[in-house]
Amino acid sequence: MPKKIRLGILGGGGDSLIGILHRVASQINDNYEIVGAVFNPDIKESIAFAKEIDVPTDRIYKDFDTLIEEEMKLPANKRIQVCSILTPNFLHFPMALKLIENGFHVICEKPMTTSLEEAKILQKAHEKAGTVFALTHTYTGYPMVRQMREMIKKGALGKIHKVDAVYYQGWINEIIHDKKKRSTVWRLDPKKAGISSCMGDIGTHAFNMIEYTTGLKIKSLLTDFNYLYKDNKMDVDGTVLIRMGDHVKGVIRSSQVATGEENGLGISIYGEKAAFKWEQENPNFLYMLSDSKPTQIYKPGHAYNSKLSLEGTKLPPGHPEGIFDSMANIYLGVAKAIRGKNYNDGEFPTMTDGVRGMNFVEATVESNKGGNVWVELEK
Amino acid sequence: MPKKIRLGILGGGGDSLIGILHRVASQINDNYEIVGAVFNPDIKESIAFAKEIDVPTDRIYKDFDTLIEEEMKLPANKRIQVCSILTPNFLHFPMALKLIENGFHVICEKPMTTSLEEAKILQKAHEKAGTVFALTHTYTGYPMVRQMREMIKKGALGKIHKVDAVYYQGWINEIIHDKKKRSTVWRLDPKKAGISSCMGDIGTHAFNMIEYTTGLKIKSLLTDFNYLYKDNKMDVDGTVLIRMGDHVKGVIRSSQVATGEENGLGISIYGEKAAFKWEQENPNFLYMLSDSKPTQIYKPGHAYNSKLSLEGTKLPPGHPEGIFDSMANIYLGVAKAIRGKNYNDGEFPTMTDGVRGMNFVEATVESNKGGNVWVELEK
Amino acid sequence: MPKKIRLGILGGGGDSLIGILHRVASQINDNYEIVGAVFNPDIKESIAFAKEIDVPTDRIYKDFDTLIEEEMKLPANKRIQVCSILTPNFLHFPMALKLIENGFHVICEKPMTTSLEEAKILQKAHEKAGTVFALTHTYTGYPMVRQMREMIKKGALGKIHKVDAVYYQGWINEIIHDKKKRSTVWRLDPKKAGISSCMGDIGTHAFNMIEYTTGLKIKSLLTDFNYLYKDNKMDVDGTVLIRMGDHVKGVIRSSQVATGEENGLGISIYGEKAAFKWEQENPNFLYMLSDSKPTQIYKPGHAYNSKLSLEGTKLPPGHPEGIFDSMANIYLGVAKAIRGKNYNDGEFPTMTDGVRGMNFVEATVESNKGGNVWVELEK
Amino acid sequence: MPKKIRLGILGGGGDSLIGILHRVASQINDNYEIVGAVFNPDIKESIAFAKEIDVPTDRIYKDFDTLIEEEMKLPANKRIQVCSILTPNFLHFPMALKLIENGFHVICEKPMTTSLEEAKILQKAHEKAGTVFALTHTYTGYPMVRQMREMIKKGALGKIHKVDAVYYQGWINEIIHDKKKRSTVWRLDPKKAGISSCMGDIGTHAFNMIEYTTGLKIKSLLTDFNYLYKDNKMDVDGTVLIRMGDHVKGVIRSSQVATGEENGLGISIYGEKAAFKWEQENPNFLYMLSDSKPTQIYKPGHAYNSKLSLEGTKLPPGHPEGIFDSMANIYLGVAKAIRGKNYNDGEFPTMTDGVRGMNFVEATVESNKGGNVWVELEK
Repeated sequence: MPKKIRLGILGGGGDSLIGILHRVASQINDNYEIVGAVFNPDIKESIAFAKEIDVPTDRIYKDFDTLIEEEMKLPANKRIQVCSILTPNFLHFPMALKLIENGFHVICEKPMTTSLEEAKILQKAHEKAGTVFALTHTYTGYPMVRQMREMIKKGALGKIHKVDAVYYQGWINEIIHDKKKRSTVWRLDPKKAGISSCMGDIGTHAFNMIEYTTGLKIKSLLTDFNYLYKDNKMDVDGTVLIRMGDHVKGVIRSSQVATGEENGLGISIYGEKAAFKWEQENPNFLYMLSDSKPTQIYKPGHAYNSKLSLEGTKLPPGHPEGIFDSMANIYLGVAKAIRGKNYNDGEFPTMTDGVRGMNFVEATVESNKGGNVWVELEK
Repeated sequence: MPKKIRLGILGGGGDSLIGILHRVASQINDNYEIVGAVFNPDIKESIAFAKEIDVPTDRIYKDFDTLIEEEMKLPANKRIQVCSILTPNFLHFPMALKLIENGFHVICEKPMTTSLEEAKILQKAHEKAGTVFALTHTYTGYPMVRQMREMIKKGALGKIHKVDAVYYQGWINEIIHDKKKRSTVWRLDPKKAGISSCMGDIGTHAFNMIEYTTGLKIKSLLTDFNYLYKDNKMDVDGTVLIRMGDHVKGVIRSSQVATGEENGLGISIYGEKAAFKWEQENPNFLYMLSDSKPTQIYKPGHAYNSKLSLEGTKLPPGHPEGIFDSMANIYLGVAKAIRGKNYNDGEFPTMTDGVRGMNFVEATVESNKGGNVWVELEK
Repeated sequence: MPKKIRLGILGGGGDSLIGILHRVASQINDNYEIVGAVFNPDIKESIAFAKEIDVPTDRIYKDFDTLIEEEMKLPANKRIQVCSILTPNFLHFPMALKLIENGFHVICEKPMTTSLEEAKILQKAHEKAGTVFALTHTYTGYPMVRQMREMIKKGALGKIHKVDAVYYQGWINEIIHDKKKRSTVWRLDPKKAGISSCMGDIGTHAFNMIEYTTGLKIKSLLTDFNYLYKDNKMDVDGTVLIRMGDHVKGVIRSSQVATGEENGLGISIYGEKAAFKWEQENPNFLYMLSDSKPTQIYKPGHAYNSKLSLEGTKLPPGHPEGIFDSMANIYLGVAKAIRGKNYNDGEFPTMTDGVRGMNFVEATVESNKGGNVWVELEK
Repeated sequence: MPKKIRLGILGGGGDSLIGILHRVASQINDNYEIVGAVFNPDIKESIAFAKEIDVPTDRIYKDFDTLIEEEMKLPANKRIQVCSILTPNFLHFPMALKLIENGFHVICEKPMTTSLEEAKILQKAHEKAGTVFALTHTYTGYPMVRQMREMIKKGALGKIHKVDAVYYQGWINEIIHDKKKRSTVWRLDPKKAGISSCMGDIGTHAFNMIEYTTGLKIKSLLTDFNYLYKDNKMDVDGTVLIRMGDHVKGVIRSSQVATGEENGLGISIYGEKAAFKWEQENPNFLYMLSDSKPTQIYKPGHAYNSKLSLEGTKLPPGHPEGIFDSMANIYLGVAKAIRGKNYNDGEFPTMTDGVRGMNFVEATVESNKGGNVWVELEK
């Protein structure tokens, strides 16, 4: 095992929640060392934060362009190998593009870009560069999500007939019901947040969860968005009818005004032989249903699990691992890829997932605008 | 309290599941006595069954018309007061109509009729007769369903913004995947079962649950049905986007091919202040969610419950009552109505629910046929 | 199938909870008809109640002795066949004894008697009479309890090593913390309630559940009781260490001051191969655990269940049946026995269970009084 | 915030589960840097492991004594500040003692020592040294465990009357049922594992959980151990009756042969006003029960939680944190203490907990050996 991978961080300073999630995840399996960063737009704050978390301050840069410039001057064996992009959404694309073009590997928060067009530009650059690119659909790192994927691949459900995914949250309620708040928060400002709030922020996770676990591609969709007040028409709720092939249908339910729901991502997959049900808030319990046999509860760490699932579990059964561990599993897969080791194609979401995700979000907006009509996704 | 109400039974003989459900429900609160019946089309079987359950055989009739004819000859104080219609769907309408026209009270299994047109004819007859008519949407009899209704009425959720109801079952799988079975079973034969399988049989319960608990009316819907094999195009799965007013939206999910699901009726109702979640398979646990307070679990029999809920609970908290008790609560409400006593308008589903239900089923079929377009429900 | 069994009721008038439980249970499977009763000590109230529930008043007797006297004058084919004893505890023994001696079958509420001595007298009389005697340990009627018993009998758990049963309730709290209430309620008065409150009332159910499901006999026990106030030393809480054979041990936990617990009866049984976990408040979910396989959830009504379990389920999977249905299953077994039909020895608790139960209660009291020492149960 | 605390590690090399748990926990809040270690008894393996996890190899020592010797030569501002002891049980005491006597802070795995006598020696040395000492009862780091403690302290339950703690596991089954395995595994060899297996390994966690959450001290106990085979009499199961004051009683249930149980630590605490129920395998759900109000589910991250709970939660509600996060919270408290910052006395278990724990284990053995008699714990 070579030395730790040299990691750069863009964003994630101060009390950033996403910051601590990525930092901890990078450290859990002893694979990464933070060597450079632009934690904050303000270089002073950035340096102060570096000191707080005891990262050397000599490679804390004043801005992203300086980081690229200075790092490129370093010899390859000192240079940042991979950058995690944790900045506001609209910066994902330009940063990722420049990093890719300069030969850096990239770990990028979602949404990958603000449009499908950007996503495709990124995809082309990435194909050319041949570097590693990971999109942090964090929830695919859970051992039982991976277990679903592997069992479905091996035919445990038979032909899939129906998929039902949900992502319900309630936290935006306190903003949406306050006229002042809803008119000032960046998330509900289309200029800053992009074309969609609910679908872009959380619906896309549910979409990715379906494609990740089932291996099916969503071919077309029909969407109905909702908003609560006429003075702010950003979607805070939406339901998406989906079609994945002949007689394979489903639904994606997504809401930010589902009062009292905390982080209610879940999926149910119904096949000819059996079904899976899983919920993010109880991530270590995977239910397998059948019409004629007792429901089975799969849990992490047991020998009956797949290799992909077991690699994502550090302790014996009954020791709950959570979302930090899930993200850590994604970082683990990226580390393998950077080191050129064999890795399973389910170990981290890729550029392809990012392009699909943007295609999905744009299609839902188009369907809704068009009066709730069917829109095809690209193949 | 007068003597027991004289009850007639149409259908429900032999091993009929619905038969035992209604019989037990009628007996639970000591309000009814079965005095006459046509349990089976075959009079011999009908009489044998009467003996088996120890019902006097002198008023077991050879057919429905004879029952009416003979009962009408009896003095009012001997005559059947109320008839429970448990026959195959297409018989509900003619039987109910004739019963109503002859002054009998009626307890009718759902679907009330096979079309909205029939439903309206029935409604007119019923308005004229002024008798009691109950439609057995059994699940509205559960104490915690009633508790939702009462608390919502009192404003516990504030303005409702989103409703999500589901009814998933998997039992039809073994039929649908067998070419011979799916071509012979009456449920999947449009000539016998009517225009819809999944939506008519179970989706309508979810629809009714929404209107019962929230007090809101669904104004329009958009539906996508699914079937699995080209040789049988009856809907065995369908998702319905619903609108209940300005910015009040929701979804009804319904499937008979949700493998491993047993009787998965459930509802989530999200309001400005709080939310309710309830599932039929754990009927005694009602979850009330809020963004800022701990989730609360309401259970039956506690003094904190509403009168309507408490009247539907016979034992102290912690003694599970089930679906027989739920149906018994509906029979209890009907008994009060027949006896001219005050009763709450939530004690049993009425003719109005039946008309609404048929309107719903027809609208889903129309929406699906029309290419998944919005269809208005009648006001 | 012969005519309904002629049932007499002793006690259970007015708002009696146990009254409605037995009445409904007797009616659920169409096997019983109430023909005579002493519902209340006051004959007027008794008759009024009979009218209320529409039972003929001609065989409502002024007291128990009169009931025996008058019924014995009737020809055998008119006479009450079986009596349900729902009176206060101290009356169970004299009533049961006289009924048995006069050839009546008996369904008796628990505790069967107020002492082991009485229990043995009853047992002898019963052996002589050869009639049917059932003790209503209601919870053994649940389909999933029966399923445990049958699977254990067939070796599903292998050798059992450990048993853990619990019965926690909190309802006595409001009495115990009120000095006046706790000094006046009959349950906490040793003269009226007998030697034990908590162990006699609910601990005995947990004891019976262990012996019913495992087929093992508890050989010895060590008990520590608790009470909260010095002015009332009746046990309201107690823990019992139990031994069932070489290296087979366990614990019975029982409390009436377990605040917030409603009717928390449960059992966990750990064997060499697998384990069962079951809780009364979710009676339709039986968990089977193994060290190396996914946990399985058994539910009622599936073909994979045993005959004994399936006979106690009336509707398809997913239709919750509750405690009324559980008691009805016991009445169903008694009906089979009275009619001389084959019945499984697990269909209703018998005289043997009653004797064991009294032995258990007395042994816990003796152990506690003796300073928490081991006490042997009789073989 | 000063630089990272210099951490030394004793044990925990290779695939050690406890190793990764401590390493990750030390990194989660950016407070520690591993600067020295004896990961393995074999220096080559130790160095190889250091390389694998990218720890500098210059301070990887051949053994513990060398570590002390060499580190003491370093200036105070380079020297290891705190050592984590992850070695086999019998080494905890000598290592901790020497570390304390040389002025190092200590984080020690449990059991703290192999006897109460050793524990007291350690305690004296620690009092003299005035350094920081933490015992890793990991489960006290969970936010909802801390929430219980804080709410109980503020009187949320009123006077506590009954406590029921459990720790059931099944993993030893595969060893115990194999004659060869059970005669060779160190855990079941009293010479290596000490006087107790089940009580020392897991029962002590349940004991600590009671004292941590309730603030009560267990005064006396009565224990019954169990073993399965005569050729190995180490306790693999045991039940402990406990007394915590006048009329305050409870039970600790502990088993390593509870087939299918994974890591089943849980606690129920019943007070005059309300009760708490919590289970380690669903650590983010805390149930608060009352006799008259709906059960409440407390979850981490909400503003309604106490400061101590909130400090142990990094992400918003609904993002499950697990056992690594729980241990990280303990490391966070230790970091505060080492840095001389204010910290709450519930932030990490201390020397006092270690002494209490050894007292508990010895008392259970004494009670069992003495024929299940009451044994007093020291005050």
